[in-house]
Amino acid sequence: MSSQHASSLSHLKLSTLIRSYLEEDCPGNFDIGGYTVGSDIKTAHLYLKSSGVLAGVPFVNAVFKELECTVKWMTSENLLPETKKYIPQTAIEGKSYTYTERPILLATITGPANSLLFGERTALNILSRCSGVSTVSNRYAELAKDWSGTIAGTRKTTPGFRLIEKYGLLVSNVDTHRLDLSHMVMLKDNHIWSHGSITLAIKKARSGCGFTSKIEVECRNLEEGLEAGEAGADVIMLDNYIGCEVENDAREIKEMYPGVIIEVSGGITEESLEEYLQPSVDVISVGKLTQGYECLDFSLKIQRE
Amino acid sequence: MSSQHASSLSHLKLSTLIRSYLEEDCPGNFDIGGYTVGSDIKTAHLYLKSSGVLAGVPFVNAVFKELECTVKWMTSENLLPETKKYIPQTAIEGKSYTYTERPILLATITGPANSLLFGERTALNILSRCSGVSTVSNRYAELAKDWSGTIAGTRKTTPGFRLIEKYGLLVSNVDTHRLDLSHMVMLKDNHIWSHGSITLAIKKARSGCGFTSKIEVECRNLEEGLEAGEAGADVIMLDNYIGCEVENDAREIKEMYPGVIIEVSGGITEESLEEYLQPSVDVISVGKLTQGYECLDFSLKIQRE
Amino acid sequence: MSSQHASSLSHLKLSTLIRSYLEEDCPGNFDIGGYTVGSDIKTAHLYLKSSGVLAGVPFVNAVFKELECTVKWMTSENLLPETKKYIPQTAIEGKSYTYTERPILLATITGPANSLLFGERTALNILSRCSGVSTVSNRYAELAKDWSGTIAGTRKTTPGFRLIEKYGLLVSNVDTHRLDLSHMVMLKDNHIWSHGSITLAIKKARSGCGFTSKIEVECRNLEEGLEAGEAGADVIMLDNYIGCEVENDAREIKEMYPGVIIEVSGGITEESLEEYLQPSVDVISVGKLTQGYECLDFSLKIQRE
Amino acid sequence: MSSQHASSLSHLKLSTLIRSYLEEDCPGNFDIGGYTVGSDIKTAHLYLKSSGVLAGVPFVNAVFKELECTVKWMTSENLLPETKKYIPQTAIEGKSYTYTERPILLATITGPANSLLFGERTALNILSRCSGVSTVSNRYAELAKDWSGTIAGTRKTTPGFRLIEKYGLLVSNVDTHRLDLSHMVMLKDNHIWSHGSITLAIKKARSGCGFTSKIEVECRNLEEGLEAGEAGADVIMLDNYIGCEVENDAREIKEMYPGVIIEVSGGITEESLEEYLQPSVDVISVGKLTQGYECLDFSLKIQRE
Amino acid sequence: MSSQHASSLSHLKLSTLIRSYLEEDCPGNFDIGGYTVGSDIKTAHLYLKSSGVLAGVPFVNAVFKELECTVKWMTSENLLPETKKYIPQTAIEGKSYTYTERPILLATITGPANSLLFGERTALNILSRCSGVSTVSNRYAELAKDWSGTIAGTRKTTPGFRLIEKYGLLVSNVDTHRLDLSHMVMLKDNHIWSHGSITLAIKKARSGCGFTSKIEVECRNLEEGLEAGEAGADVIMLDNYIGCEVENDAREIKEMYPGVIIEVSGGITEESLEEYLQPSVDVISVGKLTQGYECLDFSLKIQRE
Amino acid sequence: MSSQHASSLSHLKLSTLIRSYLEEDCPGNFDIGGYTVGSDIKTAHLYLKSSGVLAGVPFVNAVFKELECTVKWMTSENLLPETKKYIPQTAIEGKSYTYTERPILLATITGPANSLLFGERTALNILSRCSGVSTVSNRYAELAKDWSGTIAGTRKTTPGFRLIEKYGLLVSNVDTHRLDLSHMVMLKDNHIWSHGSITLAIKKARSGCGFTSKIEVECRNLEEGLEAGEAGADVIMLDNYIGCEVENDAREIKEMYPGVIIEVSGGITEESLEEYLQPSVDVISVGKLTQGYECLDFSLKIQRE
Repeated sequence: MSSQHASSLSHLKLSTLIRSYLEEDCPGNFDIGGYTVGSDIKTAHLYLKSSGVLAGVPFVNAVFKELECTVKWMTSENLLPETKKYIPQTAIEGKSYTYTERPILLATITGPANSLLFGERTALNILSRCSGVSTVSNRYAELAKDWSGTIAGTRKTTPGFRLIEKYGLLVSNVDTHRLDLSHMVMLKDNHIWSHGSITLAIKKARSGCGFTSKIEVECRNLEEGLEAGEAGADVIMLDNYIGCEVENDAREIKEMYPGVIIEVSGGITEESLEEYLQPSVDVISVGKLTQGYECLDFSLKIQRE
Repeated sequence: MSSQHASSLSHLKLSTLIRSYLEEDCPGNFDIGGYTVGSDIKTAHLYLKSSGVLAGVPFVNAVFKELECTVKWMTSENLLPETKKYIPQTAIEGKSYTYTERPILLATITGPANSLLFGERTALNILSRCSGVSTVSNRYAELAKDWSGTIAGTRKTTPGFRLIEKYGLLVSNVDTHRLDLSHMVMLKDNHIWSHGSITLAIKKARSGCGFTSKIEVECRNLEEGLEAGEAGADVIMLDNYIGCEVENDAREIKEMYPGVIIEVSGGITEESLEEYLQPSVDVISVGKLTQGYECLDFSLKIQRE
Repeated sequence: MSSQHASSLSHLKLSTLIRSYLEEDCPGNFDIGGYTVGSDIKTAHLYLKSSGVLAGVPFVNAVFKELECTVKWMTSENLLPETKKYIPQTAIEGKSYTYTERPILLATITGPANSLLFGERTALNILSRCSGVSTVSNRYAELAKDWSGTIAGTRKTTPGFRLIEKYGLLVSNVDTHRLDLSHMVMLKDNHIWSHGSITLAIKKARSGCGFTSKIEVECRNLEEGLEAGEAGADVIMLDNYIGCEVENDAREIKEMYPGVIIEVSGGITEESLEEYLQPSVDVISVGKLTQGYECLDFSLKIQRE
Repeated sequence: MSSQHASSLSHLKLSTLIRSYLEEDCPGNFDIGGYTVGSDIKTAHLYLKSSGVLAGVPFVNAVFKELECTVKWMTSENLLPETKKYIPQTAIEGKSYTYTERPILLATITGPANSLLFGERTALNILSRCSGVSTVSNRYAELAKDWSGTIAGTRKTTPGFRLIEKYGLLVSNVDTHRLDLSHMVMLKDNHIWSHGSITLAIKKARSGCGFTSKIEVECRNLEEGLEAGEAGADVIMLDNYIGCEVENDAREIKEMYPGVIIEVSGGITEESLEEYLQPSVDVISVGKLTQGYECLDFSLKIQRE
Repeated sequence: MSSQHASSLSHLKLSTLIRSYLEEDCPGNFDIGGYTVGSDIKTAHLYLKSSGVLAGVPFVNAVFKELECTVKWMTSENLLPETKKYIPQTAIEGKSYTYTERPILLATITGPANSLLFGERTALNILSRCSGVSTVSNRYAELAKDWSGTIAGTRKTTPGFRLIEKYGLLVSNVDTHRLDLSHMVMLKDNHIWSHGSITLAIKKARSGCGFTSKIEVECRNLEEGLEAGEAGADVIMLDNYIGCEVENDAREIKEMYPGVIIEVSGGITEESLEEYLQPSVDVISVGKLTQGYECLDFSLKIQRE
Repeated sequence: MSSQHASSLSHLKLSTLIRSYLEEDCPGNFDIGGYTVGSDIKTAHLYLKSSGVLAGVPFVNAVFKELECTVKWMTSENLLPETKKYIPQTAIEGKSYTYTERPILLATITGPANSLLFGERTALNILSRCSGVSTVSNRYAELAKDWSGTIAGTRKTTPGFRLIEKYGLLVSNVDTHRLDLSHMVMLKDNHIWSHGSITLAIKKARSGCGFTSKIEVECRNLEEGLEAGEAGADVIMLDNYIGCEVENDAREIKEMYPGVIIEVSGGITEESLEEYLQPSVDVISVGKLTQGYECLDFSLKIQRE
């Protein structure tokens, strides 16, 4: 399966990352399990065993490329005939699958038995988490589908696993937000008071980041928002607002500084989301998209001849 | 705070891991945010803002050691007088905290402002997840406290983050189970049929792993369990059993092979756990301890002078 | 000397980079030269022997920190009395020095003789190049001091040495421009025609980079510039323009899209710079600031007792 | 194009170095620019747009090998027919090209669009600098072509980029001189006085480096040169000599110690070179070959279908 | 030749290790020797020139795979006709060869001349040592062939080279024993007294390592052995026993705790081995298998056309 | 103890190497043994338990520096009073110790118990091997003490461990010979015939390595030796000569080319060494100094309070 988002990934970075994951699962000198099964060429089936959005295809490909195995995703051309126990389906990254009672066959993977088992746990751990992020992101996106703005993630990701969680957002068309600490300057209260005012903090930040980066300012009320707009902020984040208060402040800032992007953040849940879907709000960022999400269930079974 | 489990960690490994996390959050050439706040020495407060078990202390220490900041955990000696908005408490790894309405002050961290902000997100992301693992593990351990066996984790951990999730298990006195692919030999159906029988698979495995490693065999029924016991398995895993069937098979195997350890695994939840707490069962392993767990909420605030 | 720009540098990255430079100069197993001089503690003097702007202080500090030597920059407090052959001066990063006939003493460095010689060449190679970038940048900045816009560098830097060349720009208050390939999206003709039009290329780019990154578009004429402005470009680069044509097109785009930043680039030299210093132009980027610049001359001499 | 000097490069080292350069230009998690252009297979043309000596072919090959693109250099067999705007020429490393008004087509590069753009800047930055070194080296070599000795570089190279600058010397048949700190022992005044005399310093050095390395001694006058020769120096460097004084001292040392190599170094320019081209001098080393050299201008254009 | 033990090796680990060895032998920027021979395709012959057991085949394959050369081991199919000076033999890992007077041709290796010479020394250094370990291990195994227990190695291996020395044990069917510090818990006197008794030390260890690892206890006499057995040790090591005392103590412990494994260790030589081959002893570990072993003699000769 | 050869070691390289050794012995996520003993501060004694030359002091220091323990070598100042069971002696690198019946106390090491045990095996494995190399080197050096030339090692070292084995040579004042593949050019028969003659091979080599490296040529007879001398070889190796033939050929070459260094190599043993100790021979290189050498016996014991 050709993944539509894979061209955003540097294959050098991908290879380094995947190797580090494989080494985490086999840090020692020998792979005794591998010795037990030997290196005869086998084929394994990859199944989905719960409902949700599939995401993580390029990472599975990368795991098995490192191990010199080949992955064949189910497409309309190579769909296996439906067997008694499994339902084969076309595998499309970003597609929402419904699991009923029989596992869904997504791909076949071929290579030496020891290599298949070497990559198994890493591939499944990635797939279940990446799909988990896409599944919850998709739910938020669906809830907001009639709104003009965009749902976004945060930097609250699992250390060592950010690339994959951010990618999971991308698959469900949710904004990745800041990829790292230096991607867009974010001025929080800590930054602001150390310079005496929002205006001075923005001025200092601009002198450092130049014209190429945007500057976002966390504001706790309308007054701060207006000062940030006046001082040239590119993005204004209304932080920890109660839903009903957002509408007014966002609108006032927007009327005064129409070029500014308004972001709302802080403890927003699927239940409370609707209150924040205001026309003057451009972005709603949600920590729960990459933190505490539920994982999907996948499995890999080597086939007997 | 001196953490009781920290002596299980290699500080070389810890340093390498923490550096890789910090680089993930600041991969580029410059830290523009750091330039904005400057490098004056400041003190930040670390707060817990939800209920659960604290875990991850040595990792927070390691993050700020890399950044040349010092962390002082609240102990009975240095408890700050209760301030209006926050409750300071002694910080003890493994302790269960109850959050009511005011944040709980756990530690103060001192260093250059840019270093504090550099480490902030990584430290919080680790702490919220590690404590999340310990919190759910503690719930399972509590449910099983009158049972003779032990609850255990699995290898279903987040790639790049296994050490910390396994450590979270340890803090709640839950067994870490296999740390990696080569730690104890695990024979699954894939391994077994490739050798023709459980007996032959065990024999082959023993010739590779020698006398120093244990061998575990996944069994689907009593017959397989007895064959594994006879062939010298150290651990027998009864896989995907319905609770009520476990009691009989575990007992029969145990009677025949009293030296064998009986593990039960597969889809066990907090709700169904009780059915598996049988006297003949030694270990119950649960994927959900390190997968899809809820995260706790921590925050870091630099203090104004 | 405390360098005012050092807080923009991640010290983890700095340490990794400096170690790689030191290993490049001593890749083998032994340091035979070091064996020859031994490890007695000595003091060396750092001299400037040509005219220009001093830059690179944090890198010199980092080189000798790795080697466990201490660097003391000349400040108003510790200025040595003027000796016969050398002029001691306060060392201030970004300051312009004039060399007449006697070397200028900038700092003293103390440590084991073998360590001083181990770091010598790397430190001098960095300092002479970083100061070279700052010196030429300063000349451009001086030429443009009455203009409202900003001079900027480019990505035409020496592979493996970008951090230091970009830092040299910063010291002379010249904009660093894009730090890397993924910092601000840059749409060139290659990107544009692959999507059929400027408008479609910007749309596609926005869907990938989200609201957090700016988008710049290279335009060859007014028509393209206006299309880019209409389609939401944040920055419009007028590429390879003759000086006299810039004025009109920049003004027209600016009148229509006042929020847009206008950049001019392509073969601009110290001689031709003046033609481009137009009020409607915001940024002039110059490849020669980090490519083919002249280096300054520094030297290090261990002092006899 | 098969490069004649490429067999001096370890391909392991080359791959590591090139990967580090590519990561410097794309350190973050995503390549958003790459996402914009997609991964369709395209062909790009590599042009030379200034006059000078071509050098750096194996590095361009290595950049695009990492990115799984193929490079085809113009040879007498595959020269494209001359088009309106460009002149195709055979690409030969070390050949001197004259740019008049139309870019010179040197190679075609084929691969996914995102990979071509990923490698573009790194490849051009290498090529323009490596060719810059070869161009200035070639000028010095031409000036010295009737002389019996050899022109050489120094260790004054850009940190992180030494391999490529030294390679640029090699292409113009200029001696690379010491590749690193431990390649040939170099005794400077610092080394000498720490042992009391040139004689003692050489003795100490020989005991450390054994018979496999040469020893070079920096001498400031005839007396020192003669002492060094007597004590067994392999190479004597006459440092910072005025041209007219070299002739006599070099000849006297050579007459006394005919096996010794005489090197002259220190501030030698294209203008002053001739004075140093004496028959008793074997090597003239010039810092300016790898420092402050002018870069050549290359460009890469993806071709529309 | 397909090696029977190669499936125990992680090819990621193998590649990393082999690259580090090759870089150790060519750490600098250039391979001047390689430049001298050029990169024409040549074929080299690998000879054995002493008697012993062949081991290390996968490492030789890995060295030349990194260097893009191909290795063809002599099999019954491709045995070259016996030439005047050399005897070609089928190459089988673990086979015992007898060298008389003519070198034994084991394999041909084909690739660029500079790559063949780049890998030569590393490949030979590995092969001679790995075969050395297998040869001495085989002698011990032969001496013990009528005994029910197993000979084992120790952790007394050469730093940086453990994988290969442990592999050499495996080839001669000798137990690898602990692969690293965390593979099976080993309680020595240091551990024991720090807890007050063997019983308490075992209890503490079990709480840390869980049910997945075995625990071994070093005992100096019968009393300690019995305490360890009672406290649940999996393996009891009788340390530094005189041969004649082993028999009694091992038998008594075994009778009391039949599930326990008895290991004997400490200064056992080929001469004294027989005294320790008691029926109640399960494992005899010998430091000399990986320390101070004799190396075999191999050579590589490029063939003239 | 201050080691006289330590200033030849780059401490960056040393740290990297030692960390890789420690990671080899504890590759996994946890150090369960360390958890068992805890992190209380303890002191351990380092004993020598066999006769030979002590070498490896800086590596032991480096191991325990990484682990934040302190090492105190026995000097004339801090010699502990002789205890009942052990003999304390001043510890001097390169000194020859005679072990009779009681272990010799060389140093005390203080730090957390888990750190002491973490470093124990690596430190002992290094020390026993490094001292082994020095011991055998010292025996050869003693046998040749009345000869004018020098004994030397070879590149036949253990992959991953070369630095330490070469250092062991240095301690016994034996020449390290080529440190790596690119240190001095070595022309073997393979290189020679690929260019048609010794003369042409030397010419080609000189054009690549320049004036800074020496060139050595392996010669099988007088004729080849004379050709090499004539063509400008710096070193001539008489390879695999029978002792009695060396005298004549070495003398004839030396008479003709007195500046040339004559090396003899190939299968020389302690028994046969004397035949090669000829006045015209400058260097005798011996593979057995770093291959198949016997190891010394050291041990580390944590002291009870």
